[in-house]
Amino acid sequence: MDQSLSFYLEQHQALINDYLEDYITNKPILSSLKTSMLYSIRAGGKRLRPILMMAACEAFGGKKKDVLPVAAALEMIHTYSLIHDDLPAMDDDDLRRGQPTNHKKFDEATAILAGDALLTLSFQTIMEAEGLSDIQKVHLVKKLSIASGALGMVAGQLMDMESEGKEIPLENLEQIHHLKTGRLISYALMSGAYIGGANESQLQSLVETADLLGIIFQIQDDILDVSGNAAKLGKPVGSDTINNKSTYPGILGIEGSLKTKNLYVNRAKTSLREAEVGNTMLFTLIDHLSDRDH
Amino acid sequence: MDQSLSFYLEQHQALINDYLEDYITNKPILSSLKTSMLYSIRAGGKRLRPILMMAACEAFGGKKKDVLPVAAALEMIHTYSLIHDDLPAMDDDDLRRGQPTNHKKFDEATAILAGDALLTLSFQTIMEAEGLSDIQKVHLVKKLSIASGALGMVAGQLMDMESEGKEIPLENLEQIHHLKTGRLISYALMSGAYIGGANESQLQSLVETADLLGIIFQIQDDILDVSGNAAKLGKPVGSDTINNKSTYPGILGIEGSLKTKNLYVNRAKTSLREAEVGNTMLFTLIDHLSDRDH
Repeated sequence: MDQSLSFYLEQHQALINDYLEDYITNKPILSSLKTSMLYSIRAGGKRLRPILMMAACEAFGGKKKDVLPVAAALEMIHTYSLIHDDLPAMDDDDLRRGQPTNHKKFDEATAILAGDALLTLSFQTIMEAEGLSDIQKVHLVKKLSIASGALGMVAGQLMDMESEGKEIPLENLEQIHHLKTGRLISYALMSGAYIGGANESQLQSLVETADLLGIIFQIQDDILDVSGNAAKLGKPVGSDTINNKSTYPGILGIEGSLKTKNLYVNRAKTSLREAEVGNTMLFTLIDHLSDRDH
Repeated sequence: MDQSLSFYLEQHQALINDYLEDYITNKPILSSLKTSMLYSIRAGGKRLRPILMMAACEAFGGKKKDVLPVAAALEMIHTYSLIHDDLPAMDDDDLRRGQPTNHKKFDEATAILAGDALLTLSFQTIMEAEGLSDIQKVHLVKKLSIASGALGMVAGQLMDMESEGKEIPLENLEQIHHLKTGRLISYALMSGAYIGGANESQLQSLVETADLLGIIFQIQDDILDVSGNAAKLGKPVGSDTINNKSTYPGILGIEGSLKTKNLYVNRAKTSLREAEVGNTMLFTLIDHLSDRDH
């Protein structure tokens, strides 16, 4: 990995980790609930969504401290969705990133409530952000609730569950991922640019980048599930096949998936240039999201 | 029941029911998800929280149409909390108001996601409210997330689960109900008054009414569980005892509970008079909440 990229990722991971840790720790939350919330927040991961949001904000000249609360809110929503997805009634996973899932570490009731609490706290976090105007807060919460709720992520999760064990056409698979993964990734890019001060025409160009980025992200996820390294992934390779999940390699083959991904990467880069941010870390991040090994 | 009160309740129930039905039905939500969300929304109940909010708004001269979206948002949060509370990992209830609970009617995964979707949609509803300013929206969402999340209802629910089967002192019981039930009832009163245009000093007087109302509500709930009518309640009498829940009658006896409740009712009425709304439907509603038979 490019040294400046790896420094950028580490620096921004630290920023988001510190913000999340401080924000939650400093709230007078019931101890057992806070422990469970922090357990999953600390389980960490790559913080791709918040880093993407921060990079988009910085690409348009915005300040880190203004975007951080919204990036943290998005990561809380991502984290709550993982806690609920792992529950026995959903994907029934015992491990997440090599550690016991929340309901295995604590219990199911605590995990459900920790998820509910993180979801609710995400909106509070944006409301309490000091560098944002009321107009910005309303815009950001409106878009976040649409992206993550019944019109976005939650619907994608239910469609995903309903399609398990069924052969579905590529169109449906793309719809599921668009809702389940794409909407939050798109939100990361669009809201970062919005906070950074992108104008209407730039935001318009970014919509395509944002949509493509979600698909690129998912294709790579599916490819890694077939050909990745279990130790790096923190989960067994081939779990999609075991769980009867429809995947890009399953429908298009590995070669076809790689070709499609590269096509999308090039289109995403083109629209990034149209938004006049072709020469920023955001550009580099697209390749990183596309080629990541975990 | 007083005829004007019963007319008021019916009229306002219809308003909130129509708003919820229209708002959710008109959203292009995945059909299976929408069905599950509407199932629990339609299961209805008394709509006490939204009616209280509307009455508080009207007491200060506010308009029904301005408060309705926020009242609907609060009812969505109340409904989501019931769906999640009923889950096997939580209270494990098969029936709610005489009908199968959401996870019994559908399945656990759908119930978890319908709850998540209603919680998220509640914030979207406020953001989309046409009659409110951005300042008001930010204030209302901030307070709602605090009242319903890790600092409020969700914490109360976890404390309640943790106290099951244990004898707990009255102080802890009051803390649980303050968080689990009181915070949303308090939010109903305070946000209604805020939208209606109450001034700072009036809001200050209402804080006490709001806190007391939550306790009054819970004492009556506990009394009904001991001495109520199962048909009217829609659940068996004595379920708190069966579930090993600490209750007011269990700690203070029925007589003691009634005395405490009346003391609180009188104090709540006094602070309502201090807020200069002693002569409104809000005043009548306190007696109604205190004496309701289901």
